[in-house]
Amino acid sequence: MPLGFGRGDGSGGGSNGAEVSFSRAVIVGTGLIGASLAAAARRAGCFAHSVGVGRKRSNLEDALRLGLVDSINTNLDEALRGADLVVLCTPVAASVSLLEQVAGSTPQDCLLTDVGSVKAPICRRARELGLASRFVAAHPMAGGTETGAGAADPELFVGATTVITPLKDNDAAAVEKVSALWRALGSQVLEMDAEAHDAAVALSSHLPQMVSSALAATALRDPSPDGFTRLVAGGFRDTTRLAAGDDDMWVSIARLNRDALLREMQRFERVWAEFRRAVAEEDEDALRELLRSAKDFRRGLR
Amino acid sequence: MPLGFGRGDGSGGGSNGAEVSFSRAVIVGTGLIGASLAAAARRAGCFAHSVGVGRKRSNLEDALRLGLVDSINTNLDEALRGADLVVLCTPVAASVSLLEQVAGSTPQDCLLTDVGSVKAPICRRARELGLASRFVAAHPMAGGTETGAGAADPELFVGATTVITPLKDNDAAAVEKVSALWRALGSQVLEMDAEAHDAAVALSSHLPQMVSSALAATALRDPSPDGFTRLVAGGFRDTTRLAAGDDDMWVSIARLNRDALLREMQRFERVWAEFRRAVAEEDEDALRELLRSAKDFRRGLR
Repeated sequence: MPLGFGRGDGSGGGSNGAEVSFSRAVIVGTGLIGASLAAAARRAGCFAHSVGVGRKRSNLEDALRLGLVDSINTNLDEALRGADLVVLCTPVAASVSLLEQVAGSTPQDCLLTDVGSVKAPICRRARELGLASRFVAAHPMAGGTETGAGAADPELFVGATTVITPLKDNDAAAVEKVSALWRALGSQVLEMDAEAHDAAVALSSHLPQMVSSALAATALRDPSPDGFTRLVAGGFRDTTRLAAGDDDMWVSIARLNRDALLREMQRFERVWAEFRRAVAEEDEDALRELLRSAKDFRRGLR
Repeated sequence: MPLGFGRGDGSGGGSNGAEVSFSRAVIVGTGLIGASLAAAARRAGCFAHSVGVGRKRSNLEDALRLGLVDSINTNLDEALRGADLVVLCTPVAASVSLLEQVAGSTPQDCLLTDVGSVKAPICRRARELGLASRFVAAHPMAGGTETGAGAADPELFVGATTVITPLKDNDAAAVEKVSALWRALGSQVLEMDAEAHDAAVALSSHLPQMVSSALAATALRDPSPDGFTRLVAGGFRDTTRLAAGDDDMWVSIARLNRDALLREMQRFERVWAEFRRAVAEEDEDALRELLRSAKDFRRGLR
């Protein structure tokens, strides 16, 4: 089924000749990512009309008041009527659950996409639902510890990598349209297989989150916290920055990417055991080699 | 033995009425910390004449060329002649070893101090050598991943905490003079017991270093590094920033603060095991509680 995505139809006030544009874009979930996407797309002139959907009325009203979306709605089916783009910006598990309803309530030529940090489950669901003609999975690798529409930043995706994980039989024009949207928001788009993406982020993003949170939790349980509190320094702050992130989001990610995350946690444990043995046994050569190789690797990162 | 530390003697060009000043300050080791100290003290007008001492001629020449010190010397005994302040800025173990020679080659009224990140060993050595009248241990909690005199930053200590760990019978005027020097360089000075300091930094600084390096080493050993390299994000960079630090320095710190560090590593391991169990057994309540308490703790840090 060929898709006729309208380009530059000139029907909406927000469309100022952007390379990619939609007449009615529905953003489901106007948290940090959804609201930032709305703000960035409005600035880039990609949305003629945008609708913010969510359950929390106060957050939706923030998005409207800040001029991030043109209208708001707490009723998903109502909001979806006449949409030509839906972006699922809810937590990963919620996006997977909502996909069927969203597909059923939108025209066959309405493009569907998401922003979740784990890609295999939603791609599996899209295949089950036969949505290869119009669902394209995406993961903008950007974020922050602030939450809600009030924290929206139209610059959030500038320079960030957005991964697109196409389904095997994904419609090429649909994939290109979602890629063009993210490029219009300032992202660099990278195509990857969903399973390869999930394995890679288990190491590059999900493992650091667990390490960072475990370090903060260790400090929290310090039996004599007085000295620590006075001597907490920049290094501790950097290493635990991720720990300030939303716990519900990470519980959901850990469930959906359990196997890959567990594999990385076990690899970390084995490396950690080498550090501990070297310190305990005062094996300075081994400790130096561990620290040196880690240093070289870290300095080598662009 | 009372000490007559000269204040504002006006004899040197560098002394512009600073609250604390020395006529001949010898900086032993002009790496990042030593060279930054020299730069900051010069700007604050604390040193009438400063001498940089080290083994690496090229680094000393950098310090001289950059105007951080007034003269340089690779011969320690020669440099110490006539000094009224010596700051040991060598790695911790080297400072402990050098203390006897430095004390023997300086006048009885020459103030001695250091900048090491572990304090109990040098305090123990100072007591053995009977230096309570003139050795005052200090630890400026500042640093960076750059090394050498070329990376010197006169602002490095501004706003940083500098811990002074006085000996039990330390001369009060000597303690006050070292404190005044660090305050003049922009630091906030905090007095603590050396053992309490070492226990606190084992958690606030040394444990994060090991965690950060172990995470980088885990990524280094990724059996399929292609995906990781493409998806490495800000969170991984923050969590591994410390891993870029100097390996020799950390080997030395791990040896000198072994017991306290090992205690913290074991505490971290127990917390980590809880994270791993919660992920492995899909115990979402336990994982949420771990992440939530870590989040609250991290957000609560000033």
